[in-house]
Amino acid sequence: MPFIHNDFLLSNDTARGLFHRHAVHPPIFDYHCHLSPADLAADRKFDNLYDIWLAGDHYKWRAMRANGVDERFCTGDADPYDKFLAWARTVPHTLRNPLYHWTHLELQRYFGIDVLLSEATAAEVWDTANAKLAGMSVGSILDEFNVALIGTTDDPTDTLEHHRDLELHNTLPHTAVVPAFRPDKAYNTTGDPATWNAWVDALEAISGTRCGKLDGFLDALRARHGYFHAVGSRISDHGLTHLPVATCTDKAAKSIFKKLRDGEKISGRDRDKFTVYLMLFFGELDHAADWTKQLHLGAMRNNNGWALENLGPDTGFDSIGDYPQGQGLSHYLGTLAKRGHLPRTILYNLNPADNYLFAAMIGNFQDGKTAGKVQFGSGWWFLDQLEGMTLQINALSNLGLLTKFVGMLTDSRSFLSYPRHEYFRRLLCDLLGRDIEAGLLPADMAQIGRVVEDICFNNAAGYFGMALKGRHA
Amino acid sequence: MPFIHNDFLLSNDTARGLFHRHAVHPPIFDYHCHLSPADLAADRKFDNLYDIWLAGDHYKWRAMRANGVDERFCTGDADPYDKFLAWARTVPHTLRNPLYHWTHLELQRYFGIDVLLSEATAAEVWDTANAKLAGMSVGSILDEFNVALIGTTDDPTDTLEHHRDLELHNTLPHTAVVPAFRPDKAYNTTGDPATWNAWVDALEAISGTRCGKLDGFLDALRARHGYFHAVGSRISDHGLTHLPVATCTDKAAKSIFKKLRDGEKISGRDRDKFTVYLMLFFGELDHAADWTKQLHLGAMRNNNGWALENLGPDTGFDSIGDYPQGQGLSHYLGTLAKRGHLPRTILYNLNPADNYLFAAMIGNFQDGKTAGKVQFGSGWWFLDQLEGMTLQINALSNLGLLTKFVGMLTDSRSFLSYPRHEYFRRLLCDLLGRDIEAGLLPADMAQIGRVVEDICFNNAAGYFGMALKGRHA
Amino acid sequence: MPFIHNDFLLSNDTARGLFHRHAVHPPIFDYHCHLSPADLAADRKFDNLYDIWLAGDHYKWRAMRANGVDERFCTGDADPYDKFLAWARTVPHTLRNPLYHWTHLELQRYFGIDVLLSEATAAEVWDTANAKLAGMSVGSILDEFNVALIGTTDDPTDTLEHHRDLELHNTLPHTAVVPAFRPDKAYNTTGDPATWNAWVDALEAISGTRCGKLDGFLDALRARHGYFHAVGSRISDHGLTHLPVATCTDKAAKSIFKKLRDGEKISGRDRDKFTVYLMLFFGELDHAADWTKQLHLGAMRNNNGWALENLGPDTGFDSIGDYPQGQGLSHYLGTLAKRGHLPRTILYNLNPADNYLFAAMIGNFQDGKTAGKVQFGSGWWFLDQLEGMTLQINALSNLGLLTKFVGMLTDSRSFLSYPRHEYFRRLLCDLLGRDIEAGLLPADMAQIGRVVEDICFNNAAGYFGMALKGRHA
Repeated sequence: MPFIHNDFLLSNDTARGLFHRHAVHPPIFDYHCHLSPADLAADRKFDNLYDIWLAGDHYKWRAMRANGVDERFCTGDADPYDKFLAWARTVPHTLRNPLYHWTHLELQRYFGIDVLLSEATAAEVWDTANAKLAGMSVGSILDEFNVALIGTTDDPTDTLEHHRDLELHNTLPHTAVVPAFRPDKAYNTTGDPATWNAWVDALEAISGTRCGKLDGFLDALRARHGYFHAVGSRISDHGLTHLPVATCTDKAAKSIFKKLRDGEKISGRDRDKFTVYLMLFFGELDHAADWTKQLHLGAMRNNNGWALENLGPDTGFDSIGDYPQGQGLSHYLGTLAKRGHLPRTILYNLNPADNYLFAAMIGNFQDGKTAGKVQFGSGWWFLDQLEGMTLQINALSNLGLLTKFVGMLTDSRSFLSYPRHEYFRRLLCDLLGRDIEAGLLPADMAQIGRVVEDICFNNAAGYFGMALKGRHA
Repeated sequence: MPFIHNDFLLSNDTARGLFHRHAVHPPIFDYHCHLSPADLAADRKFDNLYDIWLAGDHYKWRAMRANGVDERFCTGDADPYDKFLAWARTVPHTLRNPLYHWTHLELQRYFGIDVLLSEATAAEVWDTANAKLAGMSVGSILDEFNVALIGTTDDPTDTLEHHRDLELHNTLPHTAVVPAFRPDKAYNTTGDPATWNAWVDALEAISGTRCGKLDGFLDALRARHGYFHAVGSRISDHGLTHLPVATCTDKAAKSIFKKLRDGEKISGRDRDKFTVYLMLFFGELDHAADWTKQLHLGAMRNNNGWALENLGPDTGFDSIGDYPQGQGLSHYLGTLAKRGHLPRTILYNLNPADNYLFAAMIGNFQDGKTAGKVQFGSGWWFLDQLEGMTLQINALSNLGLLTKFVGMLTDSRSFLSYPRHEYFRRLLCDLLGRDIEAGLLPADMAQIGRVVEDICFNNAAGYFGMALKGRHA
Repeated sequence: MPFIHNDFLLSNDTARGLFHRHAVHPPIFDYHCHLSPADLAADRKFDNLYDIWLAGDHYKWRAMRANGVDERFCTGDADPYDKFLAWARTVPHTLRNPLYHWTHLELQRYFGIDVLLSEATAAEVWDTANAKLAGMSVGSILDEFNVALIGTTDDPTDTLEHHRDLELHNTLPHTAVVPAFRPDKAYNTTGDPATWNAWVDALEAISGTRCGKLDGFLDALRARHGYFHAVGSRISDHGLTHLPVATCTDKAAKSIFKKLRDGEKISGRDRDKFTVYLMLFFGELDHAADWTKQLHLGAMRNNNGWALENLGPDTGFDSIGDYPQGQGLSHYLGTLAKRGHLPRTILYNLNPADNYLFAAMIGNFQDGKTAGKVQFGSGWWFLDQLEGMTLQINALSNLGLLTKFVGMLTDSRSFLSYPRHEYFRRLLCDLLGRDIEAGLLPADMAQIGRVVEDICFNNAAGYFGMALKGRHA
């Protein structure tokens, strides 16, 4: 029996029944990822396994570095096959890490490869995969994996030309590709003011709106939000260490904005105030347009100064922080709720020590109108693995309604990550199957099968309210 | 086999043996709850299932709101049956939430109902339960569930008239009902000074002690503590986000008190100092009177401003905070210990991320005289469920002595919550049974059966030192 | 079957195979403990079970106090047998605490005792153990347990005379005994300046280097570091609540040093700056000498003022803190990494809520040269038990490379603690065996057997790069 077999992760008969009957067929609704819109619009083909699998994958680089692999084989200039070989040598050392499961699940599902990857099998895997890749493209992958929707992650200054191209040419007839509005650079005022100003200049240029004063800046952001809406976006996204505990008047915001625009550094207190001010503004925008807001909280980024200087950001030197989350988050959501302007919101935490805080927090803001209006997002980044996802599902179950969960997303930069949905679904069915067999849930397979289908697809499809295409429409 | 069957939660033979032989017969010693003393004194009867089960239950409201149920059916003015029906419709969506187990355990144990509650069974459940309720009262419930003691939660300004009535008329011949002294309003100086002053005025009135100066205020509190003692109380209780890290001289306390009494707002620093000052004073009171003190730490309350204004507190908008707990708590307990005046104390945390901190903290203050003098309290509120209680029991086991644990309490506002003791006992026996079957504990059923009986009843009965009544005396 | 049997903790066939084939034979590499170098050098024999087992064991004292045992039988002047008896009476009350397993594992492995310790068996256990002890010494124990290396923990002002004696006389022909440099007193500037100055005076005396100015102080520390190196040390160790978030110029450090040396108290801010300054200095020393640095973070010590005054430190009144760890730790490691001077480093956390933060943190500083260069240390102190070690192993597995883990250490003050390695190895094999049987790991017994052997011994032996002796050389 191969390592990745029909009942992988499914430890009991009930789980197997649930998975095979209810979790295989629902399409994939991948509402948050970091795929390249250009690749999507170009229906890109990939020359080799390195290009589609290793390039840009900071998860693998971290594991390789921990295994003593030189940077030349990670982000460096080594030959693609040599980099792949370095990864193949590392794989047997990743036992119990999610990379071990992801690797073999991906090789199996995309290329039908059942051998375990190692130095000994590297050449064979490389050849088999590359041969299969010759007949594949982005479009054929999305079709194969039954991907109904892709939510990309985009800067407000982005032209969204690829999203428009995709629409214009109907490149992907069965997959809706929608941008998400991620305006982190608007409140990222920590570093050099010149960096922030360059971004504001770009915003000014693309929006055609003068950003000399705060009002203009807000108008420009509003205009871009509207533009994203016109192109099909119904989702925003924010990455913050935490919501600061602060309040900020219009007057104070204007003064801070002026300082920044004048190229002055601002204090940490002012940075916090400005962040809260803008986050409330963005909350209003999302609510007015009936969007869903995502908050990714708790990452501590760029910990390794040498790496930031030499390799740049997003190269595998980010980490889990222990920022205080409760009060700022409560105040943020509470302020919008008091105004009656809280949009649908998904909270993601990166430190599992905050799981219960987040799972309880969403319960404060359910409005009795939209079921599951405020969501506790699936295990994110370092938590996107069996233990992390289990802890998230358990926290959500115990403090909220699992049945209303919008479920899995890849959050990935790679087209080879769709099996993470399968991985999540297997885990979900296994948990439910165990509970049923232990008598913790009633053995009502129809009811619980429906729950599985809802979490796999129906909940998300209903929650985000975005139009699907082709056979999913 | 019905969902709630004889061996519910008991996954192995050893657990089943432990439960049925050792956990069924011990009486319930419910040392902390929020039951209405008036209902107890009146031996209240309930008109219908709504009155006894849904009214005031913010757990259910949270679940209903998350399910998209309008506020009218939660705290609003809908018809009792319609509210019940809205709850019945929500129940199937609470799978994996403790409400699902509580619901069916309560329906089974009080009314003999085995059907699962849903829209389809709502009418039948309503009728069956109401028919049974006609023959029930508070007294018959307490008798049926073998409740030896109830610890209510009471404000120092309370007359305790119902507690005295209960004593006078011996309304509940086999159940001791004792008040707990919960003086949160004394140090709740965050909001409007007028609210605090109104409470101090009430304290002045009921104690007959002038509260113009700090000394009078302390005398008044001491008088009420003595009055509670006279009425049978031996327990105090405090709800705080956390013990502040602060010290406060008598002089500073007098000055802060004067400001407050003059209707002035005080600074956050002064609020912290005053809180620590009063908490030490209350610690002294409890120690001198040989009481047990409870500290409920970590709740973040009233997160939803709209709800607080429109629905009031305790309506389901409270949450789990991430306040720093270690240093303030250590300093508080350490100060009392250094004075030799630390009372028996039970620590409850609301964020499970603090489990190990709390479980380790109690070990610093065991005095070698009273076994289990400082206790790590059972899973509280959001943690009162299988995962939460398991984590608490494991932390206590690993860092302290499980065998000295005073065990379960309902913390409930409802007379239908006694099966939570059964739920806890089943979980406890299941954990011990699993350990025995895995060879982690010796298979000494007599010894471990005694541990079960101790945790179910004997430990608490010995620890609190309160007189029991009737057949429990 | 006795409680401690051949397959204790091993719940499945695969685990049993892994343990008996791969985990029994590897020697013990105990790179961090608190054993007495004097006892080692003297090849000490022990008069009775009290001397070798109870004296100095604050774990047992905490349990005894929680069981209501008077201090006289813990740290007091009671007769050794009476103290032992008090412990024997306590043991049955430690069910589910690691002490219960440790106790019976130690009695079995050192003395062949299979009866469970209690008041009833105390006399028999005492006599049997003492009879066996008559034929035992430190050397025979190390031989019996196949201990290849012991890393003691030593103050920079220590003469290391016992380490030199051990070398000179080759007292322990098969066990390398190396000191670790633990300079906590250098930055422990919180209390009375006189205490700190007395320590600096001692450093001045033993190093023969004037410590009137900062430069001299650093020279003296460098000299002692070099002396430790000459005696065989390759490991340093630090105990801190947390790495402060601070930077400190040379000028500021000189000024703070002068203040301290002048007997003045310094501010909390200056204490933080000075700590960071020295920690960076120590990091440079370790890197230059190719040592491994250990950081023990998060203990909250001496919580009980009465106990500190009357019983002194390290008597069982320390606890788990909730200090912020992320930013200071990231800044510390990041600064050294940016300089290219980060030594091999092992991070230990005491609050399991920080497990994921620590497990992710190490990944930021793997340099692609030394495999597993930055390590997440095994469950420390309160976490050195089945649940704590499991959580650590899982966090490391999910976020890093378990296969590169340097594994277990006793951290103990007792010569009876070597079975903790066996305990860890059983747990490790059980986890791997469960995963294999669940299909989460491939059933490649050779490969996973090698992983077991690596974690048990090979990884540590390779990582620390210290010479072994006799049959281990």
